Amino acid sequence: MIRVVKIGGNVIDSESALKAFCADFAALPGPKLLVHGGGVLASSLQEALGQKPVMIEGRRVTDEAALRSVTMVYAGWCNKHIVALLQAQGCNAIGLSGADANLIRCPRRQPRTLSDGQTVVDYGFVGDVCKESVNVEMLQGLLALGLCPVVCAINHDGSGQLLNTNADTVASSLASALGAELVCLFEKKGVLLNSEDEDSVIESIDTLSFERLREEGVIVKGMIPKIENALKSLREGAVGVVIKNSAALLDEGGTKIKL
Amino acid sequence: MIRVVKIGGNVIDSESALKAFCADFAALPGPKLLVHGGGVLASSLQEALGQKPVMIEGRRVTDEAALRSVTMVYAGWCNKHIVALLQAQGCNAIGLSGADANLIRCPRRQPRTLSDGQTVVDYGFVGDVCKESVNVEMLQGLLALGLCPVVCAINHDGSGQLLNTNADTVASSLASALGAELVCLFEKKGVLLNSEDEDSVIESIDTLSFERLREEGVIVKGMIPKIENALKSLREGAVGVVIKNSAALLDEGGTKIKL
Repeated sequence: MIRVVKIGGNVIDSESALKAFCADFAALPGPKLLVHGGGVLASSLQEALGQKPVMIEGRRVTDEAALRSVTMVYAGWCNKHIVALLQAQGCNAIGLSGADANLIRCPRRQPRTLSDGQTVVDYGFVGDVCKESVNVEMLQGLLALGLCPVVCAINHDGSGQLLNTNADTVASSLASALGAELVCLFEKKGVLLNSEDEDSVIESIDTLSFERLREEGVIVKGMIPKIENALKSLREGAVGVVIKNSAALLDEGGTKIKL
Repeated sequence: MIRVVKIGGNVIDSESALKAFCADFAALPGPKLLVHGGGVLASSLQEALGQKPVMIEGRRVTDEAALRSVTMVYAGWCNKHIVALLQAQGCNAIGLSGADANLIRCPRRQPRTLSDGQTVVDYGFVGDVCKESVNVEMLQGLLALGLCPVVCAINHDGSGQLLNTNADTVASSLASALGAELVCLFEKKGVLLNSEDEDSVIESIDTLSFERLREEGVIVKGMIPKIENALKSLREGAVGVVIKNSAALLDEGGTKIKL
């Protein structure tokens, strides 16, 4: 079974957490891919360069200057730093954007109406990735060489334009397309029944219980799109999804998402 | 025959030159690799971030902040931008640093005495690549997948440290290790007999005529290490070296270097 592991800011933004994670990830047996973000570092670079990061409904408005910044941070520093750390752990990592080997090609996002039903936003050089964006044959070719793709969320439109995309969507699309298990790592031990109690991890969530927990106000905010994303990934071919703590990659536990 | 093509600043720093080059490069038949620099853009980023680029005898002193900058520019923006442009031309490019797939592993440069025989310089996170640094088997695996590696001059030491290296040396080491032809592109039509006459291209230079032309003061400055590098590459396995104009990749002409 192939595993697609997604890490976020709590790992990327801490050198000690990143090193510990890379040791764990290298020890994970079987074919695997790593997907990473880097949003906080990208915003820092934008600010240092006098650009103003603009986020609308959680997505970065990406003009030409912002595209250069996110490409430099995601595909440049973050990606190569992770690859070098994994290589030091004996994991034959290869850092890739979706432009590389034409791995992920997606259309540019058209201007869209926000959830207020009125404001129309042009996100700029932003793309939307789906299962069909993924070049499965080429990924399997790289895996067959014994390589571990480390994928950032910079992709392309096939006509020469790089596009900034969402790392969660990249991870779930890769898992669906490859029929892989998706492992989403974050700062908590799993989806919590009580946000005040770090140990109240819900063992598994399915479509029905998700609806109920959402109505009850147990699952709120950023966890809603995370679980919707997980369910979509399962419907489209992923063989399993687990949401767990970044420091617990090699342990059992976390929240399993089921259809 | 495999070709290793090296481009420099006159292509990287001009969007129109880069687009024209990518169209030519995509049309070049047979297995091929592209090696690129990006030094001017890296210095611009350093300056924009309040870092002071320090060059000693043509090499960048690379502290931690400088390493981040060069990695962001070379492996991030330059590399992915070139890959997206090549993909748009139907060339299945894959952008790589030497850390990726452990393609180029090299030692960190030890502090060294400059040509004045006195000053000792620690270049920081700088590495020295040679033929033995190159992972030939993995490169052949990537070429066998129909891929065209686009290689920047960021490499690693195998212990988790990225290293800034020289793009000309990366290109010649790749050509030697792969038994490839090395094509060095630059702003002139070739090595000139008379620097005032753009058409006075020397058709071929060998070890003997190089010594003579150097003594006569015909070959000076930056051209000396370029030709020394070419001769070394031939002695170590490259099947040919040609130095020619960036806009003339698909044409005959330029200066052939021979042993």
